[in-house]
Amino acid sequence: MRHVVVRNIERGPRDAIDALGAAGVATVHEAMGRAGLMAPAMRPIYAGASIAGSAVTALAAPGDNWMLHVAIEQCQPGDILVVAVMCENTDGMIGDLLATSLQARGVQGVVVDAGCRDVRTITEMRFPIWSRAISARGTVKATLGNVNLPVVCAGALVQPGDAIVADDDGVVVVPRADIQKVASLAQQRADKEARSRARYAAGELSLDVAGMRAGLEAAGLVYVDSIEDL
Amino acid sequence: MRHVVVRNIERGPRDAIDALGAAGVATVHEAMGRAGLMAPAMRPIYAGASIAGSAVTALAAPGDNWMLHVAIEQCQPGDILVVAVMCENTDGMIGDLLATSLQARGVQGVVVDAGCRDVRTITEMRFPIWSRAISARGTVKATLGNVNLPVVCAGALVQPGDAIVADDDGVVVVPRADIQKVASLAQQRADKEARSRARYAAGELSLDVAGMRAGLEAAGLVYVDSIEDL
Amino acid sequence: MRHVVVRNIERGPRDAIDALGAAGVATVHEAMGRAGLMAPAMRPIYAGASIAGSAVTALAAPGDNWMLHVAIEQCQPGDILVVAVMCENTDGMIGDLLATSLQARGVQGVVVDAGCRDVRTITEMRFPIWSRAISARGTVKATLGNVNLPVVCAGALVQPGDAIVADDDGVVVVPRADIQKVASLAQQRADKEARSRARYAAGELSLDVAGMRAGLEAAGLVYVDSIEDL
Amino acid sequence: MRHVVVRNIERGPRDAIDALGAAGVATVHEAMGRAGLMAPAMRPIYAGASIAGSAVTALAAPGDNWMLHVAIEQCQPGDILVVAVMCENTDGMIGDLLATSLQARGVQGVVVDAGCRDVRTITEMRFPIWSRAISARGTVKATLGNVNLPVVCAGALVQPGDAIVADDDGVVVVPRADIQKVASLAQQRADKEARSRARYAAGELSLDVAGMRAGLEAAGLVYVDSIEDL
Amino acid sequence: MRHVVVRNIERGPRDAIDALGAAGVATVHEAMGRAGLMAPAMRPIYAGASIAGSAVTALAAPGDNWMLHVAIEQCQPGDILVVAVMCENTDGMIGDLLATSLQARGVQGVVVDAGCRDVRTITEMRFPIWSRAISARGTVKATLGNVNLPVVCAGALVQPGDAIVADDDGVVVVPRADIQKVASLAQQRADKEARSRARYAAGELSLDVAGMRAGLEAAGLVYVDSIEDL
Amino acid sequence: MRHVVVRNIERGPRDAIDALGAAGVATVHEAMGRAGLMAPAMRPIYAGASIAGSAVTALAAPGDNWMLHVAIEQCQPGDILVVAVMCENTDGMIGDLLATSLQARGVQGVVVDAGCRDVRTITEMRFPIWSRAISARGTVKATLGNVNLPVVCAGALVQPGDAIVADDDGVVVVPRADIQKVASLAQQRADKEARSRARYAAGELSLDVAGMRAGLEAAGLVYVDSIEDL
Repeated sequence: MRHVVVRNIERGPRDAIDALGAAGVATVHEAMGRAGLMAPAMRPIYAGASIAGSAVTALAAPGDNWMLHVAIEQCQPGDILVVAVMCENTDGMIGDLLATSLQARGVQGVVVDAGCRDVRTITEMRFPIWSRAISARGTVKATLGNVNLPVVCAGALVQPGDAIVADDDGVVVVPRADIQKVASLAQQRADKEARSRARYAAGELSLDVAGMRAGLEAAGLVYVDSIEDL
Repeated sequence: MRHVVVRNIERGPRDAIDALGAAGVATVHEAMGRAGLMAPAMRPIYAGASIAGSAVTALAAPGDNWMLHVAIEQCQPGDILVVAVMCENTDGMIGDLLATSLQARGVQGVVVDAGCRDVRTITEMRFPIWSRAISARGTVKATLGNVNLPVVCAGALVQPGDAIVADDDGVVVVPRADIQKVASLAQQRADKEARSRARYAAGELSLDVAGMRAGLEAAGLVYVDSIEDL
Repeated sequence: MRHVVVRNIERGPRDAIDALGAAGVATVHEAMGRAGLMAPAMRPIYAGASIAGSAVTALAAPGDNWMLHVAIEQCQPGDILVVAVMCENTDGMIGDLLATSLQARGVQGVVVDAGCRDVRTITEMRFPIWSRAISARGTVKATLGNVNLPVVCAGALVQPGDAIVADDDGVVVVPRADIQKVASLAQQRADKEARSRARYAAGELSLDVAGMRAGLEAAGLVYVDSIEDL
Repeated sequence: MRHVVVRNIERGPRDAIDALGAAGVATVHEAMGRAGLMAPAMRPIYAGASIAGSAVTALAAPGDNWMLHVAIEQCQPGDILVVAVMCENTDGMIGDLLATSLQARGVQGVVVDAGCRDVRTITEMRFPIWSRAISARGTVKATLGNVNLPVVCAGALVQPGDAIVADDDGVVVVPRADIQKVASLAQQRADKEARSRARYAAGELSLDVAGMRAGLEAAGLVYVDSIEDL
Repeated sequence: MRHVVVRNIERGPRDAIDALGAAGVATVHEAMGRAGLMAPAMRPIYAGASIAGSAVTALAAPGDNWMLHVAIEQCQPGDILVVAVMCENTDGMIGDLLATSLQARGVQGVVVDAGCRDVRTITEMRFPIWSRAISARGTVKATLGNVNLPVVCAGALVQPGDAIVADDDGVVVVPRADIQKVASLAQQRADKEARSRARYAAGELSLDVAGMRAGLEAAGLVYVDSIEDL
Repeated sequence: MRHVVVRNIERGPRDAIDALGAAGVATVHEAMGRAGLMAPAMRPIYAGASIAGSAVTALAAPGDNWMLHVAIEQCQPGDILVVAVMCENTDGMIGDLLATSLQARGVQGVVVDAGCRDVRTITEMRFPIWSRAISARGTVKATLGNVNLPVVCAGALVQPGDAIVADDDGVVVVPRADIQKVASLAQQRADKEARSRARYAAGELSLDVAGMRAGLEAAGLVYVDSIEDL
């Protein structure tokens, strides 16, 4: 493992990233062909948060948040800090002090594959964090990791500069090269869903709206009037 | 596994089901002799939801929500859709489109032994869902299951037409044949608890209200003044 | 296992315990040298609760809350009831009746290494409970444990009379003999953090505020301009 | 919950049950249309055990093995005792004494949705047990459950008299009415698999043996020569 | 947390500790009144290991085995090293080098509430380890803990000098002051079990041997001839 | 997600891969700077297996092993098939038929982030599989994934052609470009460990062999004669 900080990373186009954020995690994940999601264990510390930005990545040792302090300096306004840990760990890697520092530098939020603490204060600050756990467990500053190398966070590969979208449904990663295309596909999907939603709200069935009946019959689905008919 | 949809199921009496809902999950579970609960991993997507209705059941393959689309057609106003999955799975089986369709048809809510997504929108719709996880993970429509056959959902056996009661404490299943009797027992229990609550609120101890002291002594409980007396 | 209730326990100084509560779980844990935390699985049933008090301890059998009824009598106003279970268990050990009784006697809240139920009512009562699960599963009254002996609760040793601090970040235990000292150290830490927070809010980096750069370099951290430089 | 012991249950035909055992868990599960499996957390205490028999069911309280003692009397030679617990629990419900008693009465083995202990002795006895855990935790005899009513064990519905097949792959339940048919289908499947195995061993591909290529192409699978071609 | 090594600890009588080992984990746990067990997640790396000795305790940071190196020096022949970690962690705290060193000094085995590695070599050495996981994940030597202070390991309180008994059923802790008494009680229990075992092997039922029928009837257990009688 | 099969991948040098296998998972992981490990949940189906080879990767839908059938055709003798799944899943993706086919084509073994079945037969075949679970649960062939694109398997990034080393300690991934270098470093480390082992076996302490005493003292470790001295 190289103990390196990469200073310059390429970020995606801001307007397309904003479009991803407007589409939301579920729609973006679908637009990517059902890819890019982090594990559902990653939950926001408060409901209603919704952000999209470029990933600055950090890899930390368990119980050690030294590299988060290093990573802050590499963040630009609008970025999202993504913290991976070398093994499964729930320690409180980030508290209100680091959150204050990140917010002061314009970072939108944090995705951390471990724990966070001071969640009441951070909620009042409206600085959103997605984490695997809430834990007051403190960390040391003793072991190096790295910043802005590719990491695996909550089961998803994150390259520095990838777009991160996070909301109440979880966290999704969009490779930097695909941001524009995925934003466009997400918009198309959102438009199509809006049309379907109107028909469902009017009482139509997806069996008809999406034309599923023939496929179900072909697959062998059988209807009977009652359990006695089996 | 038969790939069958049963069209007609028998439902319990609506007034007794309403009485179960008024009693709440914990009281109904006690009135049944401490039976019928789903696993505590089943949590509502928002606090304060409380529903009771007849179960329409669906069995789905992991990562595949085809049978939910089929099940909607079998639901009547006031029903609750109960979704079991063939193995442990947290994928987002239901999102805001299916929720819109179910709500349009008068379904009260969903109990799904997997994940759900679009939780912010669905919360705004006030359409309650109890699930094992929140996950944006999308599903396919490729593998058949069945609708309105008995299923095991979150560790509990659910027969179509059983009463489902769900609130902040979880989900309980009442066999259709027992609904009337359990509603009556739940009411008795609620009445008794109301009397006890008043005495506890006045400072009386359950040791005295429920007459536990003799039983504790008979079982061998010993009181000492301090740890040094051991 | 002795089936004993110890009637008299020594409690710590109330003003120091209040100071621990004001400092909060994370700061108290740090002031103890990063010790005393319960596992992060212990979560409050509602956000914003924050209490500190002396521990009355109970040890219960799985699925059996008999000893909670016994323990209430040993509680004084301001105490916190800490319930350990003999094995991993999530059953609903405490509901609104016990909560009513505890609140009537001035108990501040409960920490239970199992489940609780009636959470909607208890939330409305503003009686805070930290638990491993929410479960309507009822319990019996058949097997003895003990009250006011040392217990291991959620991974932490709790002696009767220890101070318990619980808030949105979890639960921490302070040995009775250390309460005064830890309260003082926590205050010092809070003061120092306030100063740091102001500097971070002004945009300074912890790398500079805490003087980390030399240590990082000594440990071997390398900065490169871009990933191509590796 | 009724505290009842049902003395007489109907069992399936012994030769068909033996045929299920010869086919093994995976083949039986497939022959049922991929149904009937218990959760994979159920593991045998030693490798190589393989049994098939009629289920005698018991429902126990957590940490309480009273009903196992009751259930033994209802077992006949060749039966398998299936123990469900009212909630998630890993306590050591069965040890070498109960195993000795069961073996003396001709019971083939035990499936318990909790823990077992004395595993070294029981392994030496060659009395196979499938359990969720190995735990020395002792149990009490204080709370009633029932014997020979339907139970949910490790996520599967088990009716008294159903066939249980258990081996290194886990545990599967065959409803009594389906035993003959499933045994026949399992045999057909085993025959077919034997033919396929020979072809695979000779180097043929399942893509060809099972004719998958057209389906894959129709579904949209694309072959490229190298990653650069994407 | 004090960063301290305590050099001199009191150990229990060797012959009584040997008697505990001969009785085994399950019997010792019962003889203590069903107390002292570690969580069932603690499993031996190979079957058939069985040891008993005095605990030398160590507390380690997650991902950091520095204190194990320190603890070895405090071990005497016949001791068992018990390693607790400050939070949940599965890293490979001990490998074949540390095992070689411990074995060279006469230590009987290790109980570690984290992971171990090099398990094939250590198994060939016949040096038994009970751990929560097998993991090759390496550790650093950067953060202090302590040696020979009380620890909570896998949910059990361990004081230096307590007796540890570990076998295929798990790990149990006997407080030093109780070793002699528990050894005696364990022997009595083993004798009694031997008598019961003979009767069970001869086909007698525990219902009769232990006289349970009256208690079951008093508790309300009902026998019916068939399910139709309910 | 692209539904693509990449036919040609680059593999690393066979002799260096063999050297990695000889060094074993723990040593290779250390030689990489403590990187590349899969999660410890990945366990071999039998003890003593040890393989090293080039990764052919597959990404599968939950409960669907279609892509494994596709992947076999892309395997060469000496390869290891690495199967990632789109979400957490334990279904039996591979059984004895696929194992037969893979073994016939010279594949060394399989690493699958899900379940496997027919483990008794596959163990007799001596075809090693590392998996998250053993499960008889059958899979369908309905949903495409891909073959020989980068995947995240059990928390580790695997690129096609990377070296995989798997033994009783778990699974580690070595990026193709680093194979030669890591093999060399692993050899150096093994040599050094051999020297240390001899000294430990002779009774020397790592405190002295590795010169840790000064660092411990500098970090603040204090020795006291007895607990009373604190």
